This record gives sequence, structure tokens and C-alpha cells, in this order.
Amino acid sequence: MSQSSSRHLEYAIKTIGQLPGIGRKSALRIALFLLKTKSSVLPELMEGLKGIRDHIQNCKTCHNLSDSDICGICSDHSRTRSTICIVESERDVMAIEDTGQYHGLYHVLGGIISPIDNVGPQDLNIPDLIDRLSTKEVSEVIMAISPTIEGETTIFYLSKLIKPYPVRISLIARGVSFGGELEYADGLTLGRSIVSRTTIEMTENA
Amino acid sequence: MSQSSSRHLEYAIKTIGQLPGIGRKSALRIALFLLKTKSSVLPELMEGLKGIRDHIQNCKTCHNLSDSDICGICSDHSRTRSTICIVESERDVMAIEDTGQYHGLYHVLGGIISPIDNVGPQDLNIPDLIDRLSTKEVSEVIMAISPTIEGETTIFYLSKLIKPYPVRISLIARGVSFGGELEYADGLTLGRSIVSRTTIEMTENA
Repeated sequence: MSQSSSRHLEYAIKTIGQLPGIGRKSALRIALFLLKTKSSVLPELMEGLKGIRDHIQNCKTCHNLSDSDICGICSDHSRTRSTICIVESERDVMAIEDTGQYHGLYHVLGGIISPIDNVGPQDLNIPDLIDRLSTKEVSEVIMAISPTIEGETTIFYLSKLIKPYPVRISLIARGVSFGGELEYADGLTLGRSIVSRTTIEMTENA
Repeated sequence: MSQSSSRHLEYAIKTIGQLPGIGRKSALRIALFLLKTKSSVLPELMEGLKGIRDHIQNCKTCHNLSDSDICGICSDHSRTRSTICIVESERDVMAIEDTGQYHGLYHVLGGIISPIDNVGPQDLNIPDLIDRLSTKEVSEVIMAISPTIEGETTIFYLSKLIKPYPVRISLIARGVSFGGELEYADGLTLGRSIVSRTTIEMTENA
């Protein structure tokens, strides 16, 4: 699309177009939509952005996103406080919370070890994790980190670091996806899932 | 994706998700991106949105988007002032400007006649168009309106209204797209393009 006759519209399109996944055509569409909703969506959006700018911080305990010093999960005393699930990012916390299958605490690393991207252990929230393990409140640490090369490196590094502490270190299960067709599973996953096969426990009634 | 542990992040995701073409997952991605670019992209975006809120208006002559009372096209005296191209929206102005093939003025209707959407002639910028024709400066009016049922209705209505004025009324050419394969053209377009065929003028040298 071409230049607009409004310099302000041009600037708005340029700034909207900087957002991930939004090209110039979508940016134009969004800008014109906001122009039409000047008194409804636009002020709400500006309020939302101000919230991001002024109010969101990282939880001082687990580094998850929070509106206060300690996040809602860390301050929820109905959760299992003896289990810490280590994840790469806030997004992983949301994804796991979404499953409704986990009721312990989290620790957000803020990245994974990746020499190519120049991310080393010193760039991650590891000292705070060790502090948490030193309190003896924790009995299990779950590694919920992506099974990529960088993820495996991070898991290996952390496992060595955690080993001296009296906690069980576990890993989320890996294998073929539920509901997925075997023939479409990638070879590595399928191969590993055969190696890591589990025994089916048959009860008398089955 | 699930609820976040930050109420402010939740609100931001909700407001971003109101934008056209952006679902909850994209909204989350954008919100986290803005959180990471708090000191670069976020302030620029807020500045851009303020521009939309405070500075963009409609040109008093042609109703195109403008930063001032009269838009850059209407105030550009190097353009052919005797030709007015009637379009539905500001987007069409941009698309036509982008071709670089038109050097006259525009008139933005702000919609097309559509009884289903409850849009009648009284909702469009038609009185101003008639005023412009009354100045006798104009010798041609080009209808650059989509060849849909609503578009054709609008063209028919406007043509009747403009007929008393001493101007030539023209219509942008319709037919098969340049570079398109005939077999993929829709039947209506192909049929009309045969009916509206033009003679190839052979010069002696051809």
C-alpha cells in the first residue's frame, strides 16, 4: 500500500507495523479501525498499553509476571509449596496453568542456555532458584523445558547444580502426542518413545 | 491460552485482542513483546496512537484523511483539478495513489449504498460532491467503485445525480486481471470482458 495523505496516519502505521506478526497492510487496517473507534477501542487499548508500561513486573520469588512484588501463584497458600516447576518463560507458566494439572510453584528462568544467541547460565534466574532450594521447603523440582538442544543443555546444567540438594529432579514426559497419528510423528520423537516405553499395568478386572 | 498471573497483562491482552485480525494468542505475543520493548517500541506505539486520537481528521473538500483542514492532494496545485475520482474509502485513495497512474483529485464517499447494512445516500458525503461540481472547475468524474451489487447501485444513483452537470462521467475498466490466467477468472468477469471487448488498433508498422 502507498503513502497516506496524513503524516500522523503514516507514523501510526509504521509503529503498529513494528509489532510481531503484523505487516504494513494489517497495520493500515488496524490504524483505520482505531480511527473509527476513537472513543471506544482506542482509549481502552491506550489504557492497556499504559498498564504494560507502568504496572507489570517480575515476581521477586519465581520471576513470573506479576502486578506486585510476589505473584498470585507464589502467594497462593493452597498450592503445593514443596514442588517447583522450572520453565523457560512466562508463556510456559500460562500454558501449564491452562492444563489445570499442576498445583505447585514455578521458577521462570527467563531464557535457556544458548551459546549461539550468547545466552549463558549467568543470564538466567538461577541464583534465586538455588536460594529457594536452600530453604529445605522443596522436595521436588520438575524440568518443564523444551526438548531441544538448548533445552537439554539447560536441563543438564541445572541438574548438576541441583544434585547436592536433597530434592527429586524430574522431567516432563516426552513421546508421541495424544491424538496424533503415529505415521506423522517425527522420527526422533517416535524412536525415543519406543526406547522410553512403559509397561502397561493390567489389573485383575481389565 | 490461560489466564496470566498479572491482571494488567490480562487487560492489555484483552484490549489488543479487540484489534481486527488479532486473536488471543497473537495478543499475548504482542503484549509480551511490548513488555520486552518498554523503552523502544512501546513508547513509539503510544505516540502513534496519540496521533490517531488527536491529529487525524477528514479533508473538508474531499473527505480523505488529512492532518489539516485541506488534505495534501487537494492543496497540491500541480494536480489536474478538473478531474474528480469518486471512491468508497481512504484505502481506495491509497491504492490508486500507489499505482502512480492518476493525477487528479478525489472524493471519498465514506461508504456505499447498502440497504442491508442500513446505509443510504444520506449517510455518504454526497452534498459536498455536488457542491464541487457546481463550481464548473470539474470536467470529468471517474467512478472508481467496486463492481459489487452495492457498488453498482451507488454508481447508478450518483450518475443520475451528476447527469444535470456538464461533466463527463466515466467508469474504471473492468475485465480479466493483467497477468491472470483466463481459466482462473470468475465466469461473470470473463463473460463481461467478452461483451465489453475492445478493438485492437493495428498501425502500419505493427
